[in-house]
Amino acid sequence: MADEERFTRLRRAMERQRLDALVCRLPEHVLMLTGYWPVCAWVYAVFPRDGAGSCILPDTEEEEARAGLFRTRCLTYPFGTKDSPPQAESVLRLLKAAARGWKRVGWEESSDTAAPACNAAELQIPSARSRLLLERAFGARRLVDASGLLRAEQVLKTPSEIEGVRKANLIANFGIQEFFRRVAPGSSGVELAAAVEGAIMVQGTGFQQARCVRAFAQVAVGPESARGWRPAELTTARRLEGGEVALLELAVVADGFWCDRTRARVAGEPTSEQREVHALVREAQAAAIAAVRPGAEAAAVDEAARGVIRGGGRDRQFMHITGHGLGYRYHEYAPLLAPGSRDLLQAGMIHSVEPGAYGPSFGGIRIEDDVLVTESGAELLAPVSSDLGAV
Amino acid sequence: MADEERFTRLRRAMERQRLDALVCRLPEHVLMLTGYWPVCAWVYAVFPRDGAGSCILPDTEEEEARAGLFRTRCLTYPFGTKDSPPQAESVLRLLKAAARGWKRVGWEESSDTAAPACNAAELQIPSARSRLLLERAFGARRLVDASGLLRAEQVLKTPSEIEGVRKANLIANFGIQEFFRRVAPGSSGVELAAAVEGAIMVQGTGFQQARCVRAFAQVAVGPESARGWRPAELTTARRLEGGEVALLELAVVADGFWCDRTRARVAGEPTSEQREVHALVREAQAAAIAAVRPGAEAAAVDEAARGVIRGGGRDRQFMHITGHGLGYRYHEYAPLLAPGSRDLLQAGMIHSVEPGAYGPSFGGIRIEDDVLVTESGAELLAPVSSDLGAV
Repeated sequence: MADEERFTRLRRAMERQRLDALVCRLPEHVLMLTGYWPVCAWVYAVFPRDGAGSCILPDTEEEEARAGLFRTRCLTYPFGTKDSPPQAESVLRLLKAAARGWKRVGWEESSDTAAPACNAAELQIPSARSRLLLERAFGARRLVDASGLLRAEQVLKTPSEIEGVRKANLIANFGIQEFFRRVAPGSSGVELAAAVEGAIMVQGTGFQQARCVRAFAQVAVGPESARGWRPAELTTARRLEGGEVALLELAVVADGFWCDRTRARVAGEPTSEQREVHALVREAQAAAIAAVRPGAEAAAVDEAARGVIRGGGRDRQFMHITGHGLGYRYHEYAPLLAPGSRDLLQAGMIHSVEPGAYGPSFGGIRIEDDVLVTESGAELLAPVSSDLGAV
Repeated sequence: MADEERFTRLRRAMERQRLDALVCRLPEHVLMLTGYWPVCAWVYAVFPRDGAGSCILPDTEEEEARAGLFRTRCLTYPFGTKDSPPQAESVLRLLKAAARGWKRVGWEESSDTAAPACNAAELQIPSARSRLLLERAFGARRLVDASGLLRAEQVLKTPSEIEGVRKANLIANFGIQEFFRRVAPGSSGVELAAAVEGAIMVQGTGFQQARCVRAFAQVAVGPESARGWRPAELTTARRLEGGEVALLELAVVADGFWCDRTRARVAGEPTSEQREVHALVREAQAAAIAAVRPGAEAAAVDEAARGVIRGGGRDRQFMHITGHGLGYRYHEYAPLLAPGSRDLLQAGMIHSVEPGAYGPSFGGIRIEDDVLVTESGAELLAPVSSDLGAV
């Protein structure tokens, strides 16, 4: 996506830190620095403070790159044939060609997490070996850790980035609607997850020109859902029984921009306790969203949701945080909507709002949507039903 | 999987390099050192040369871990609730507790690639920040780069690892069979990919006790398939026309072990040229597999396939390599079956055999299977039809 504002802001941040260039290989950073989300990750972004940037990539990826690159030269090297030279040598040659006598070159030295790719190709990560390559290209004493700058720059989204995250959210709704259609006694967790992921790939590819779309769905059924938020949740072949909850945790990435959504649905008729908890969680989410505005304390937004749950006598059933930043990845570092967080919300942030409650007598109910902090409050990025079951 | 042999071999390699312990966070290395493939990756494996190893992980992942860990203590820290202490502090505390006055601690310093995870959680990668953590736990001067040892150890598989890769291959066959059922005029690339991935998740989960199964399918249709092997291939919404090829490139991971497969299928009736190329590619694959045995030159196995394609006058239509090692990832570093490769095959290696030919007049036809090098030759890990179309 054409993102003049992102480049202007990056250059301003580089000026403050006296960086002459940024050189990155993590796909999420390549996206931010060039406009292109690498399909595989054998790609380096070279982003100078002055002049046009370059994207170094295998010729097998050139066509995909040209569809995304913004104000960035495309420098390709031969790859994937039986006679291709070693990739590191090709990249080194092109890095040297891109260099312009820079004195301080920022890279991802201490980035210790990486967003997943959209396919099975191994991620190329910044390691001691990557450092050696950059030392050969730019000189050891010129390398500067820019992980903090890159991380900080991602917190406030540009209009173009907001559209990217909104698109991922709209595509996620295809999966949520498929989930609603499929939840019924007899459906298994893996069947539901596969149906959601399939609907998103089929209906999302091409939606608003999205080119690369993938969903990761986790579906907890019945007692599995009652165990609280568990990042390690494995979707199983267990089948829903009537009256049980199916809890869908859903990540979608569309051309490098992520969303994070959750819906709960009862197979058949909800019990009165399920209805009560669901209403409470929905109210908690609405209260948190109503508290979002520039300058608001992230901890206060958390408390807005938590207070509602507490008011319903279910404080201990809501053991996790209320939300987190996202966009360039499923989870970003800021803002953190949690008790004790010192973050202040600012216009241009995007974060999840995901209160929930979990108990053996009713299951797990969480509702999660992504909101944009605007000048006047919060904008829900892709409204869709959060009903618990058929009316 | 219980893997006494792996642990014995690791200890022998550590002895040779005078390493007192290995400490790793990349999921594929955690799997090798503990028997557990982290669902999320907030996990450290501590593998001493003497005594039992430890796996440091969030309490949210304990149940999944205990199902996999082999002769390894499970050290958990609180995670994912609103009151959890910072993860790095918890990990540091447990690393210090696990330490036993080691003088040389190996870690993944120069590992510059990482296999994808099975979900959307960010991968935890070894960076300068990881080094700081290990320095605080063990002392800076005691850290040794063990990336080479880890990589080398993965080349020869143990019986237990072979079963892991075989299982992934058997599960992949569910997707291949779904692909065969679905290829028809009017089917789109994304529809085929989604159907393959869904069949694998639904039928693979629970197959031979597999707990965490994910497929990554790329489907090129018609002229898309004719462009040769392209790792960056994006699956599109283009629909198959009668007589066109659908080319399925398929990665499957089952509890941390990968396979790499390809099938081509014609929608409707194949042309005589498609039949001819298909027969040639199948013959090339058979010739390569027949050449596999301990001591064989990987380059000679490549040439066995390439010679057949050349004999059919299509040398230039087979521009990629014949195969590569795999198992702990979709692509491992050795053996490399390519012209000029100096690798020698050994019993216990697993590699792909994937000749192909690509041309505008017929499309792209590649057949890829994974084989185990045995004492007497090659064993195809999961035989299944490679037919081009309905008989």
